[in-house]
Amino acid sequence: MTLTATTAHLVPVAPSSGALRPLGLDEVRITGGFWHRRQEVNGTNTLDHIEGWLEREGWLGNFDLAAAGTLPAGRRGREFSDSEVYKYLEAVAWELGRLGALTDPHASERASALEARFHAIVARVAAAQEPDGYLNTRFGRPGQGARWSDLEWGHELYCLGHLFQAAVARHRTRPGADDGLVDVARRAADLVCEVFGDGGIERICGHAEVEVGLAELGRALGEPRYLTQAALFVERHGRGTLADIEWGRSYYQDDISVRDATALRGHSVRANYLAAGAADVAIETGDDELLDALARQWDATVERRTYVTGGQGSHHQDEAFGDDWELPADRAYSETCAGVASVMFSWRLLLATGDAKYADLVERTLFNVVETSPAADGRAFYYANTLHQRVPGAAADPDAVSPRAHSSLRAPWFDVSCCPPNTARTFASLAGYLATADASGVQLHQYAPARIRTTLDDGHEVALAVSTDYPADGIVRVEVLASGGDAPWTLSLRVPAWAAGASLSVRPAGGGGVETRAAAPGTAAVERAFAAGDVVELSLPVAPRFTAPDPRVDAVRGCLVVERGPEVFALETVDLVGTPLEGADFADLHVDATAPPRDLPDGGVAAAIVDRRTGARTEAPLVPYHAWAERGPSQMRVWVPVAERLPLGE
Amino acid sequence: MTLTATTAHLVPVAPSSGALRPLGLDEVRITGGFWHRRQEVNGTNTLDHIEGWLEREGWLGNFDLAAAGTLPAGRRGREFSDSEVYKYLEAVAWELGRLGALTDPHASERASALEARFHAIVARVAAAQEPDGYLNTRFGRPGQGARWSDLEWGHELYCLGHLFQAAVARHRTRPGADDGLVDVARRAADLVCEVFGDGGIERICGHAEVEVGLAELGRALGEPRYLTQAALFVERHGRGTLADIEWGRSYYQDDISVRDATALRGHSVRANYLAAGAADVAIETGDDELLDALARQWDATVERRTYVTGGQGSHHQDEAFGDDWELPADRAYSETCAGVASVMFSWRLLLATGDAKYADLVERTLFNVVETSPAADGRAFYYANTLHQRVPGAAADPDAVSPRAHSSLRAPWFDVSCCPPNTARTFASLAGYLATADASGVQLHQYAPARIRTTLDDGHEVALAVSTDYPADGIVRVEVLASGGDAPWTLSLRVPAWAAGASLSVRPAGGGGVETRAAAPGTAAVERAFAAGDVVELSLPVAPRFTAPDPRVDAVRGCLVVERGPEVFALETVDLVGTPLEGADFADLHVDATAPPRDLPDGGVAAAIVDRRTGARTEAPLVPYHAWAERGPSQMRVWVPVAERLPLGE
Repeated sequence: MTLTATTAHLVPVAPSSGALRPLGLDEVRITGGFWHRRQEVNGTNTLDHIEGWLEREGWLGNFDLAAAGTLPAGRRGREFSDSEVYKYLEAVAWELGRLGALTDPHASERASALEARFHAIVARVAAAQEPDGYLNTRFGRPGQGARWSDLEWGHELYCLGHLFQAAVARHRTRPGADDGLVDVARRAADLVCEVFGDGGIERICGHAEVEVGLAELGRALGEPRYLTQAALFVERHGRGTLADIEWGRSYYQDDISVRDATALRGHSVRANYLAAGAADVAIETGDDELLDALARQWDATVERRTYVTGGQGSHHQDEAFGDDWELPADRAYSETCAGVASVMFSWRLLLATGDAKYADLVERTLFNVVETSPAADGRAFYYANTLHQRVPGAAADPDAVSPRAHSSLRAPWFDVSCCPPNTARTFASLAGYLATADASGVQLHQYAPARIRTTLDDGHEVALAVSTDYPADGIVRVEVLASGGDAPWTLSLRVPAWAAGASLSVRPAGGGGVETRAAAPGTAAVERAFAAGDVVELSLPVAPRFTAPDPRVDAVRGCLVVERGPEVFALETVDLVGTPLEGADFADLHVDATAPPRDLPDGGVAAAIVDRRTGARTEAPLVPYHAWAERGPSQMRVWVPVAERLPLGE
Repeated sequence: MTLTATTAHLVPVAPSSGALRPLGLDEVRITGGFWHRRQEVNGTNTLDHIEGWLEREGWLGNFDLAAAGTLPAGRRGREFSDSEVYKYLEAVAWELGRLGALTDPHASERASALEARFHAIVARVAAAQEPDGYLNTRFGRPGQGARWSDLEWGHELYCLGHLFQAAVARHRTRPGADDGLVDVARRAADLVCEVFGDGGIERICGHAEVEVGLAELGRALGEPRYLTQAALFVERHGRGTLADIEWGRSYYQDDISVRDATALRGHSVRANYLAAGAADVAIETGDDELLDALARQWDATVERRTYVTGGQGSHHQDEAFGDDWELPADRAYSETCAGVASVMFSWRLLLATGDAKYADLVERTLFNVVETSPAADGRAFYYANTLHQRVPGAAADPDAVSPRAHSSLRAPWFDVSCCPPNTARTFASLAGYLATADASGVQLHQYAPARIRTTLDDGHEVALAVSTDYPADGIVRVEVLASGGDAPWTLSLRVPAWAAGASLSVRPAGGGGVETRAAAPGTAAVERAFAAGDVVELSLPVAPRFTAPDPRVDAVRGCLVVERGPEVFALETVDLVGTPLEGADFADLHVDATAPPRDLPDGGVAAAIVDRRTGARTEAPLVPYHAWAERGPSQMRVWVPVAERLPLGE
C-alpha cells in the first residue's frame, strides 16, 4: 500500500479512498446551538477539570517519576493511566483546532493559554520516553513487569494507540508544531513495528486501540509501515494468542478472526476500537471482504445488541456485549466509552459507503450516550449509562475518586477514568463529523448551526450557512453563501430513519417558485447550479412519539419509550413532585399508550402516566435522557410499561 | 443463655425453642421416589466425584503440606479451598447417618467404606491444626499473609464455620466417634472466641458462615460461649469494620445492621448464611425483635428479589441480589449455593414460627435450584442457574476445571467449587427437612415416600408410612403404623400455596366412612385418636398451570411460566426437533396463553408454542427445569412470551 501524508484538513479520520471525503475543522465550524454549548463547556470546564484530576491523582506525575528514573516508587493509578493523559492531549489538540477556526476574540486568548498547557504536558511525556522509543510508566523498569510481559492486561499498546491519536490530532491541527509530540509518537510507533512486526512477537494487545491509532498515524505521516503493523494486529485477533480467561477470549476479541465474526462481542469498547481499526485497514488495503464483514457485524450489532440510546454493552461483570436481544434496561452498562468508540466505527463505515444508516447511529449515540455522560457543567460524568434507576442514586463526593461505575449521580472522577477525556476529545472534534464531500457535492450528516466552506473536486468553492434550532426544532435551513462556478452540484441532507413525513424545499435566491417535496428517510439530495442566496430547507417532524421495542428484546417487552427527534426521553421522579403521582411506588407507574405524548408549551415533552394500583394519573413531564440526574437523586426509567392488563396477569 | 448438649437426634439444626421440633435422620427415612433417587446418586457418584477432585486439585493435599510444615510452597486452590473439604466431610457425615437408618444390606457395607474415608481425611485435617487451634492452609505461616490479616477476602472464619458444621453433623450422626473431628472443631472454636471475643478483634469475616457454624456447634456441644461469639459476629455486621469496596459494603452485609436491614442484599450466599446464623442467635437468646426483623427481610426478599425457581441473586459481577424487582431471566445468577443457604434460612424460620410459607420456599428451592445444579448422574454441576439460555451452551471438558460459572453445560469442577459439596451435604441430610413435631403432634412439610417414627411430647410413640409418587402425582398417603396410646394428636400436612383445590381425606383403619374435605393452602390438620391402619390422604392438584410474573418484574413482563406441582418447567430446543418449530429462531417463539398446558401420556407436560413470524405452531414438550441441559447443547427459557400483539408493538 502507498500513502501520502494528508495534512490538508483537520479531520480525525482521513481515509485515502471511500465514498465520502470528511470535511475538517478548517472546513466546518459549529457556530451555535446544542452542540456549540457543549463544545464551549467542554473546552473550558471539562478540560480544566480533567487536567486538574490528572495532576491531582498523579497520572501526569508518573511521567515525571519516569523521567527522574525513580519508578516504580510512587507510581499512582491503574495500568492504563498514561492513556488518559494522551486522550486529554488529543482533546486539547482538537480544541486548539476548533478555537483556531472561531472568530470570537476570546478564542485566541483561550488558545494561547491552552497551547502553553499542551506544550508543558508534552514536555513531561517526552521526557519519560526511553531512548529506543518505549513509553509507558508502568512497565519495563527494575521492580516493574517486563515490557510486553502482560499483553492481556498490561495495556501498553493500548496506551500507545491513544498517544498516536493525540499525535494525529496535533499533526493535523498544528502541523509542524515544535512541541515534539509527533516525534514522540513516531519513535514509539517505530518501536512497535520493530517489536511486533513480522518475525517479532506475534501477539496482540488485550485492549484494542493500537490498530486504529497506528492506521491513522500512518495516514497522517504518510508512513505505510504503521498501517502494515495495524493490519498485522487486526489479522492476529482470533488466533488465541492471549490467555483464556473466565469470560472467554471473546472478551478481547481473540476468539474469532475479525473476518469471521458475525457481530461485535466481548468488551464493548475493545470491540468497537478494533472494528474501527479494522475498517481503516480494510479501506487502505482495498480489502472489500473485510469491509463487508465489518458492515455485516455492524448491522447485526445495531439490530440485536444496541440499546435504544445507541448504547452498547449489557454486562457489568465484563463490560461486554450480551447475546443477541440481551438488553436489560436496569443493568444496562452502556459504557460511555463504548459510545465514543461506536461513533468512531460508524463514522468510518459512513465514509466508506455513504450509507445514511451509519450517520443515524452516530446521531443517536452522540445525543443519548456521549452527551449523557457529562453533567451540564462538564465537571462530572457517568461511566456507565443505565436506562432504569430503581433506587435513587447517591450524590457522588465532588472531591473524591468514585470507585463505582454506577448507582450514583455523575461523579467527578473514577479509578478508571476514561470517560472524561474520551468525551472531551469527541466533543472538541465534533465539527469533523458533520459534513462530507464527494465528486457530486456536499453531504450534511449531523445538524447544527454551522458555517461550511470547502472546495469541491471540480475546483469550485462552496460555502454554506446552516441555521437550525435542532433538536428542539426540526427545521434545518441551509443557505448557499457561495457557489464558485455555474456547474451544478448536489447538496445532500440526511433524513433520519425516525423522520417519516419529512419534506425538503428549495428557495432560489432570485425569488421564484419554492419547490417542496417529500423526503424519505435516507438521503434527500438537491442537484442544482446553486447560486449564493439559494436556500434549501429540510423539515423534520419532531413531534414526540412512542417507540416500541423489538419483540425479541425480552427485558423491555410491554414497554414504550418516548422519543422526540434524535432524543430519547426519560421519566424521572423529580418531575412527579406536586403531581397526583408524587410518592407513588415507581414500580407501579405505567404509561397510557392511548394518549400520545405531546410537546409542552415550555419546550418539554409530556406523557400520560398512571399508577397501576391506585389509578391516579397525571400528564408527567419527561426529560431528555441526556439531561437526567441533574436535579438530585431520583428514580428514572426510559422504557415505561404500557398500562394494560396482560392475559392471566395479576 | 444456657444450653445443654443435644445429641439425641440426627438433625442439622437443633433450636432449643421454637414452634416446631425438627425430626432427625433417626426419625425420618426417605424410602423411595424422587429424592431417594437423588440421595442414592449423591451418596455414591457425587461423593466419589467430589473426593476425587479434592485430591486431584490438591485441596486435600494442602493439609498434608501444612502438617509437613512446607507451606506456602505447593499450595493449590483459592483462599477458601479448605472449606470444600469441610463441606465434603459434612456431606459424608450426613450420608453415614442416612445409611445407618437404611435397612438395605448394602448400606452397611457402603457405610464402612465411607467411614474409613472419613477417618482418613479427618486425620489429614487434624494434622494441619496448629497447637493453639488455628486451622487454615492459606494464612499464618512465613511467606503467607498473617492470620486474620485479610478479613475482607481471606475467608478464614468462613472456612471454620464449615468445619463447625461438619463437626456438628459428625457429633450428631456418630456421637463419641474416635476420629477427632469434633475436638478439632472445638479447639478452633475456642481460638475464635479468644481472638474475636470481647476485647479481641472487633471485626467480622467478609463471608458470613462462622455465625451459623458457631451457633450450631454451641447447641451440639452445649457450649454457650460459641453462641455468644456467634451473636457478637451477627451484631458487628453493619458497623463498617470491613473495607469499602467497589460494590459497597452491602456486598458482605457490613452496610446496615442485621436488625435494621429491610431485605437481604449484597452477595446472596453471604446474605443467607448470615440470616440463618442471625436466626439461630435470635432464637437462642429469645430476641424476638431480631427474629421479627429477619422474618420481614425474608418476606421482602421472597416477594421482590427471588426468581420463580426460588433462586436468589441477580448479578454476575458481585454474585449479589439486585434491587427490588430486578430479576432478569437471562442474566439470572441464582447461584446454587444461594439456594442451599436460602433453604437453611427458611428452615430456621419454619421451626421458629411454624408458618407453612417457609416450607413452600424450601420446596420450590429444593426442586428448582438445588436439584438443578447436579446432572442426573451427580458428576457435573451448575454453579449459577440461568433461566434463559439464548445460545446453546458448550459442553464442559469432563476432565478439566471449568473457569466459568455459566454459559456451558454442567461442569465437573470449578475454580470456585462450592456447589458440589454444598448440594451433597443438603441431599445427604434431606430427611432432616421433611417433618417436625410439636406438643400437638406431627407435621409433614415435604413429600416423599418415607418412614417416620418419633415420640411425641406426651411420651407416646408414633409411626407413619408416607407413600406418594410426588411430584409426578399429587396424592400423598400417610398411613399410621403405630400410635402408642389413645390420646388424640394432630397430623398436619402442608398444602402448598400453588395447590388451590386440594383436599384431605381420612380413612379409618376399621373401615367406616371416609371423610373428605377441602384443604386450603397453608396447613391441613387432622386431630384424632389415631389407630394403626388409619390413612390420611392429601390430594394436591398437580395439573400443569400457567403462572404470570409480578407486574413489577420488568424483565419477564408479558411472559408466562408453566409449573406443575412444585416444579418449574422449561422450553428447550432439543424438544423441538422434528416439530414444525425445528430450526425456528428461538427469539421468535411465543406461548399461546389461550391453550392451557396439559399433561402428556408419558408423564411430561406440553404447551402450545407459536412462531411469531411464520405462525408455525406445535404442542411442544416442556422439561422440568431441574432436568434441562441433560441432552446436549440447547437453547432454553423458563419464561415464555405470550403470543399477542402489544399496542404499537412491532
